[in-house]
Amino acid sequence: MYYIGIDVGGMSIKGGLVTENGAIVARHTVETQRYDENYGIADDLRKVIDGVLAAGNTDLSQIVGIGIGQPGSVDSERGIIRYSNNIPLENIPVVAQLKQYYDVPVYINNDANCAALGEYVFGAGKGYRDIVFVTLGTGVGSGIIIDGKLFEGRECAGAEAGHMVIVCGGEPCNCGRRGCWEAYASVSALIRQTKAAMEKDPSSLMHEEAAAEGKVSGKTAFVAAKRGDRTAQEVVDKYIYYIGEGLVNLADIFRPDAILLGGAISKEGESLTVPLQKKMNAEAFGSKFNPGIAVKIASLRNDAGILGAAALINAYQRS
Amino acid sequence: MYYIGIDVGGMSIKGGLVTENGAIVARHTVETQRYDENYGIADDLRKVIDGVLAAGNTDLSQIVGIGIGQPGSVDSERGIIRYSNNIPLENIPVVAQLKQYYDVPVYINNDANCAALGEYVFGAGKGYRDIVFVTLGTGVGSGIIIDGKLFEGRECAGAEAGHMVIVCGGEPCNCGRRGCWEAYASVSALIRQTKAAMEKDPSSLMHEEAAAEGKVSGKTAFVAAKRGDRTAQEVVDKYIYYIGEGLVNLADIFRPDAILLGGAISKEGESLTVPLQKKMNAEAFGSKFNPGIAVKIASLRNDAGILGAAALINAYQRS
Repeated sequence: MYYIGIDVGGMSIKGGLVTENGAIVARHTVETQRYDENYGIADDLRKVIDGVLAAGNTDLSQIVGIGIGQPGSVDSERGIIRYSNNIPLENIPVVAQLKQYYDVPVYINNDANCAALGEYVFGAGKGYRDIVFVTLGTGVGSGIIIDGKLFEGRECAGAEAGHMVIVCGGEPCNCGRRGCWEAYASVSALIRQTKAAMEKDPSSLMHEEAAAEGKVSGKTAFVAAKRGDRTAQEVVDKYIYYIGEGLVNLADIFRPDAILLGGAISKEGESLTVPLQKKMNAEAFGSKFNPGIAVKIASLRNDAGILGAAALINAYQRS
Repeated sequence: MYYIGIDVGGMSIKGGLVTENGAIVARHTVETQRYDENYGIADDLRKVIDGVLAAGNTDLSQIVGIGIGQPGSVDSERGIIRYSNNIPLENIPVVAQLKQYYDVPVYINNDANCAALGEYVFGAGKGYRDIVFVTLGTGVGSGIIIDGKLFEGRECAGAEAGHMVIVCGGEPCNCGRRGCWEAYASVSALIRQTKAAMEKDPSSLMHEEAAAEGKVSGKTAFVAAKRGDRTAQEVVDKYIYYIGEGLVNLADIFRPDAILLGGAISKEGESLTVPLQKKMNAEAFGSKFNPGIAVKIASLRNDAGILGAAALINAYQRS
């Protein structure tokens, strides 16, 4: 028997045929469209599902269930996409729409929640009881596992740690608040911080790196810092400081076994985890008496979404 | 049958004989001492327990269990006071010590957790499923109820929302970090903010209020603001802004049904809840689509500790 996991993104909708052990044995991907009443996201999800079944040379009788990871606010109890910014959607009863065609359990959840669950079941979170998963990407997302279950808050609207203010009155955030963690710890924030530092230091190697890449990216400061550029190192240190402030906040609130970092920036590996683990050990509340918290890089990379969505099926059947 | 609830504080240890419906029918209080190997906190807890039994004209055969609310870090699973600042204590196996004398279930938990549970079972939190309770006192404490159960984090070391940084690099906090919520939203923080404003405005009514009271207190700015003093109003507005920043953070993370405010400052009632509810409605993530969150004053006042400690007994027997 197999699971189908689907990872909905702003650019593409990726599906995978997943075994019980978390191996992806077949894949199918379609480009994300602009959806309206005539052609809805459910139509593309059907293309992905049918494509995955065909690629795996199998049919619905071999499928335990279908799981979908979706950006934005998702009502997982009712199977509704409440709203999403990046792919403009509002109140889409996507589970009911798919159930008309597929007579298997269908689940949907927020994409960061899915990634957290994927890491918990198949990745770096395996063996822990409580984890906090943080994606450092275009935005800052979070997924929280307590006692082996996704913690979602009322009507699945919680776990939005990226919108925790860490700098009162600071940088404006898309959510309407000022000083959100996301406005300091996302890739977009790092790019802003990198550009500001480059403007002040025309001799920084970051200019060379940006020219070579054709743009300022989330890598610019990290690469230049590794080459010994002092201004770049300052950008990296300050950026990691901001990540750490949010991580220690979450540590004090949840005191999980481990915090896992995913998203584009997590590719920096030990450049992130070494200073962040040090900060965690020093600053988490009552460090002398209370249990320590591991800071680790998530391990599933691009497949976290598909695997996490597939893991939704058992996560829900358990309760 | 009765419960015994004990509220350990820096000044006194208060005990109550509590009915199933949360009525306190007898009380006994002793002064908090400095404890050492010869005279431990368990000795004073015994005085309180025996005093409560005597005051209630009853004995242990009528007691379902004993609950204790203790400031600081408490290992509730093992029944150990891990450490406490205000009453200097380290690694005291207080439950085992009491069990030698009382053959009934004995539970201990952090005082803010107990107050949260008390409000949930007997007070303003009745009827909700998930609540966050915040005490605005000398410090800022928090207690979190998820699905009707205390959420404590690993080894009961979580729920320290007062040490969430809301101003990166801001005011120093006792915990070693800078910019903690506690350093902006506690009574001590309000007094600091009040004094700073008074220094800048010698004509403010706050000087008159402080002289009348003999000191600058948590009430100074609130009282002067009600008399129309503009500088005092600015102090109050800014202080409420800081409280609100932390509350909206907790709303985005937990998305509970309600947030309850306790502690000394909560006596300001609607002066707090009206602006904070407004801020919550406007700023909680995805307010347009997501469920609203009530901001309310906790209702049990000084008895929250005793009642919450008593409520520990059933909370634990349930699981």
